[in-house]
Amino acid sequence: MGKGRLEAFSDGVLAIIITIMVLELKVPHGTSLDALVPLIPVFLSYVLSFVYVGIYWNNHHHMLHATHSVSGPVLWANLHLLFWLSLFPFTTAWMGENSFAATPTAVYGIVLLMAAIAYWLLQQAIIASEGESSVLKTAVGTDWKGKASPLLYLLAIASTFWSPWLAQGIYVVVALMWLVPDRRIERVLVRREG
Amino acid sequence: MGKGRLEAFSDGVLAIIITIMVLELKVPHGTSLDALVPLIPVFLSYVLSFVYVGIYWNNHHHMLHATHSVSGPVLWANLHLLFWLSLFPFTTAWMGENSFAATPTAVYGIVLLMAAIAYWLLQQAIIASEGESSVLKTAVGTDWKGKASPLLYLLAIASTFWSPWLAQGIYVVVALMWLVPDRRIERVLVRREG
Amino acid sequence: MGKGRLEAFSDGVLAIIITIMVLELKVPHGTSLDALVPLIPVFLSYVLSFVYVGIYWNNHHHMLHATHSVSGPVLWANLHLLFWLSLFPFTTAWMGENSFAATPTAVYGIVLLMAAIAYWLLQQAIIASEGESSVLKTAVGTDWKGKASPLLYLLAIASTFWSPWLAQGIYVVVALMWLVPDRRIERVLVRREG
Amino acid sequence: MGKGRLEAFSDGVLAIIITIMVLELKVPHGTSLDALVPLIPVFLSYVLSFVYVGIYWNNHHHMLHATHSVSGPVLWANLHLLFWLSLFPFTTAWMGENSFAATPTAVYGIVLLMAAIAYWLLQQAIIASEGESSVLKTAVGTDWKGKASPLLYLLAIASTFWSPWLAQGIYVVVALMWLVPDRRIERVLVRREG
Repeated sequence: MGKGRLEAFSDGVLAIIITIMVLELKVPHGTSLDALVPLIPVFLSYVLSFVYVGIYWNNHHHMLHATHSVSGPVLWANLHLLFWLSLFPFTTAWMGENSFAATPTAVYGIVLLMAAIAYWLLQQAIIASEGESSVLKTAVGTDWKGKASPLLYLLAIASTFWSPWLAQGIYVVVALMWLVPDRRIERVLVRREG
Repeated sequence: MGKGRLEAFSDGVLAIIITIMVLELKVPHGTSLDALVPLIPVFLSYVLSFVYVGIYWNNHHHMLHATHSVSGPVLWANLHLLFWLSLFPFTTAWMGENSFAATPTAVYGIVLLMAAIAYWLLQQAIIASEGESSVLKTAVGTDWKGKASPLLYLLAIASTFWSPWLAQGIYVVVALMWLVPDRRIERVLVRREG
Repeated sequence: MGKGRLEAFSDGVLAIIITIMVLELKVPHGTSLDALVPLIPVFLSYVLSFVYVGIYWNNHHHMLHATHSVSGPVLWANLHLLFWLSLFPFTTAWMGENSFAATPTAVYGIVLLMAAIAYWLLQQAIIASEGESSVLKTAVGTDWKGKASPLLYLLAIASTFWSPWLAQGIYVVVALMWLVPDRRIERVLVRREG
Repeated sequence: MGKGRLEAFSDGVLAIIITIMVLELKVPHGTSLDALVPLIPVFLSYVLSFVYVGIYWNNHHHMLHATHSVSGPVLWANLHLLFWLSLFPFTTAWMGENSFAATPTAVYGIVLLMAAIAYWLLQQAIIASEGESSVLKTAVGTDWKGKASPLLYLLAIASTFWSPWLAQGIYVVVALMWLVPDRRIERVLVRREG
């Protein structure tokens, strides 16, 4: 089974998720700059989620680049990841429209956590079908980022009881941590070809 | 005629159907967890339909993998399938927003039934254009799943007069029946190559 | 310039147009079958437009299959066609929500007419860039369907002053006329390869 | 890293942006032609943005055609461009619904300016990864259009204090300036192959 359609379908879903999120930026009634002020938290919430979807697209791109064929469990693990990502527009809008209130911030974190777990499951499904000596297995290595992220999301979810802003800070830190491009896969690919 | 564009177009429509369904999860006004409670049936309805669209995408993927070229009737049979699938967001939302009431549950089943018939027609159109000795023909075999599903949908539609929950149970059972990946096509392909 | 991205972009826009049209089927408040009755004209309007978008996708598919490379004017002629097709959801909804009233029916026809002209312009742009001896030029031949359709649309638009149902009848006839798959291109391709 | 998925993802996002913009053409309640009159500014605003998205798609198409491989910074520069383009539906709707009032017109220009800067950054990222002797570097040359556009946008934003219609005029002029297809890349490609 080729991976072309899996990539195309995932690209489609991710592209639509990004653009559906922007629909929450509802057109204001006034025509002054003041009319935009209530949209600021919605906008910031959009920016955060845009970066997260960008990171997922980017890493998904790299991960499948290191994959040769696609098995049944991989197809379903991928759909499972897309399911959690499809909830981003909902949690982004709920958090943004309520100026980063505690509960919506926690629920946002829960969906981030579930997406991280789903991504990890997809990675395991690919490694299982490609074999222990696969490019992906070698590239992932200790995978400290993949292990640290869920813990940080849990910390953020817990911190909303005390301060939702601390949770936001953690979400931003995790995003920045991943924004640094994941060169592991590229490095292993180059080494093998060399 | 190549099958690339047929796959791309179908992927696009399916990706949008999935993400349009999630728009029915309307952002609640409150900021407490209680505000999410009325969304539970909408969410469950979304999960069920997400799995169904996933199954269709998965089987469509496998079916076209075993197809070599695409004729006029196949193009239209595929559009016919997409038409019924495009009604999923409507029936999913109607059923979810009314907490699985009898009539919306029956209408949900009717659209499932029509999609199943459309899928079967597409399969027949492909076999007709590929020939009796085609990979797909051999792979499909007795096709008990494809024959049992419409009967089960009919049973579910009828059961809504008595208990809509029984209908939901049947919808879940049919989904689980298909979730088991359809290895028939893979098996036939492997055998031919061997 | 390759035609791959032109096809992918057009597929994306057409897939979204189809699924945006279905959003006009607004979820009713009641849970009885009666609640669906007011949706019947909206549904019929959707079916008509779905078939038209399907025809455009189908013919676009065939036309680009017979095209080798894509020039600047072709890119813009294609965007021009997509522009008119992008107005389908608007005219479909306006016509459906007003039970096929005269003016919305006429405006629906105007957009059909503009799309037909845009399609013809795209065809001319491709022939101009491929040359007079191109597959497309030979395949199109006298192009009676392409010439009859705009005239029939004009007739339908005019007839709305007298009877909007006559206009609907003409729209259905033109759709049926095109539903018969356009085998001209396939035939010429087969002949050349033979 | 191949460029296929970058193109596919960008096509998906651009296709959705275009079709989301058309959703702002809200179906009127009346059934007379008069009911369409209030939609005229919304429609004109849509046409302008459609042309701009078309130009971006067109130039993006050409730019990636002249690109061989895609690095991490290029992926993120591309997402950054898509971010600003994703704000087009919002600014288009705000401007159109308020009949081209001064502030919405200025904000429309700011998003155009940011998209132009993002496009330039993407171009620089590609040149940096492809090398100084790359096709793109040679093709872009002095890039007077790329340098003039941001200045014209700035002028338009400033002019909204005096006359929003002057700003609209400038937006139209810049669009026309780019509508002339960018043959630089095609010319360099042809020369190299020759």
